[in-house]
Amino acid sequence: MSGAMLTIPGIVASAMNIPQAAKISLQKNDVILFQGDSITDAGRDKNTTTPNTPQMMGNGYVIQAAGDLLFKHAEKNLSIYNKGVSGNKVPQLADRWETDCINLKPKVLSILIGVNDYWHTKTNNYQGTAKSYEDDYRALLQRTLAVFPDLKLIIGEPFAVNNIRAVDDSWYPEFDKYREVAQKLALEFNAVFIPYQQLINEAQKRAPGMYWTYDGVHVSLAGACLMANAWLEAIS
Amino acid sequence: MSGAMLTIPGIVASAMNIPQAAKISLQKNDVILFQGDSITDAGRDKNTTTPNTPQMMGNGYVIQAAGDLLFKHAEKNLSIYNKGVSGNKVPQLADRWETDCINLKPKVLSILIGVNDYWHTKTNNYQGTAKSYEDDYRALLQRTLAVFPDLKLIIGEPFAVNNIRAVDDSWYPEFDKYREVAQKLALEFNAVFIPYQQLINEAQKRAPGMYWTYDGVHVSLAGACLMANAWLEAIS
Repeated sequence: MSGAMLTIPGIVASAMNIPQAAKISLQKNDVILFQGDSITDAGRDKNTTTPNTPQMMGNGYVIQAAGDLLFKHAEKNLSIYNKGVSGNKVPQLADRWETDCINLKPKVLSILIGVNDYWHTKTNNYQGTAKSYEDDYRALLQRTLAVFPDLKLIIGEPFAVNNIRAVDDSWYPEFDKYREVAQKLALEFNAVFIPYQQLINEAQKRAPGMYWTYDGVHVSLAGACLMANAWLEAIS
Repeated sequence: MSGAMLTIPGIVASAMNIPQAAKISLQKNDVILFQGDSITDAGRDKNTTTPNTPQMMGNGYVIQAAGDLLFKHAEKNLSIYNKGVSGNKVPQLADRWETDCINLKPKVLSILIGVNDYWHTKTNNYQGTAKSYEDDYRALLQRTLAVFPDLKLIIGEPFAVNNIRAVDDSWYPEFDKYREVAQKLALEFNAVFIPYQQLINEAQKRAPGMYWTYDGVHVSLAGACLMANAWLEAIS
């Protein structure tokens, strides 16, 4: 160990050292869509179709990130949607993509998917692999960009914390492949990549893993804010 | 109009120009308690007794402020509670104060109360006045400080936005007296005062009132973040 220990905001700033030119600039009337699994869903009210409401956002990283966007960009008349669905893997995203993505005409699309693509191979006898995750995820992105060529894309890294409830040594090294796929696709599709695994690893230098995630997969309120603060670094 | 128009974060910074020495410094293991009415409650799960959880926080300004505290002060092992209850006025706070404040042994106490103390005189035939609000609120604060003489106190200004649904000209000037009482008590009890009315007035220069509050009394997600960002200025 050398140098002063970073504060938590310092950890975020250090991990998210995105050049200003690579950040996403929001425009007036932009539609921003969050997509993903339970970490994105976070108990949102699925009966709500109204953007920008707390009910739409759930109680995870999306309500923190969306709140900050609505606050700081009040003049922009943004419409922010959360369409994360608990338990989803890439194939479930693909199944509902027309309704839950294309029809919403997003200008900014944030996707966090992949932990179930691995986890369910262990718990639900899911037959997918890191290869099918990559192929299916790439196909989904290609399909989306064919409709919206100017889409601004944010891809979140799937993450897990070892030795907390749902996660143990048996996840590794296989789970790491899913993280690598997400990063590879971000590069391939010119997306801003959010390195959640690195962030939550670094954050554990300041508070134990259980402070950030209660089961190794799903985040606490503190973890949700860690994620949101990193996500917001994608926006100029 | 003179000078450049402030951004929303600029409006918060300008309104919340608290000298560093007057800010609240958080200590390890601090218990932070949010108290108030529906604006604080914000649909929290009343069956939850676990601090620091999204369920405890509801979906209003508290989840935004608490999330930021848990994120930035990860090393401090904070315990944050939201005990706001929808519909409450000062007398209802007093009724449940032993359970919902004293027993929790807060080191930092944030109170936002008063809009119902006025509003219910119009809608619920409530017989309270600005004078009884002041007397009862002062008694509650004296009672609290008698038990916790070193308590760090944050008092939020009750606020309303005229000409939006629940609020019209008939509220004024009477409602202003309640705002003045809160400010007076903050000074009297050496509390940090959060001037929510000024903030929401200023914020309307950047987005319409309906962007910040959907009924003149309760805030939108954007309004909740406006409040949280101001609240957080009370903390060093």
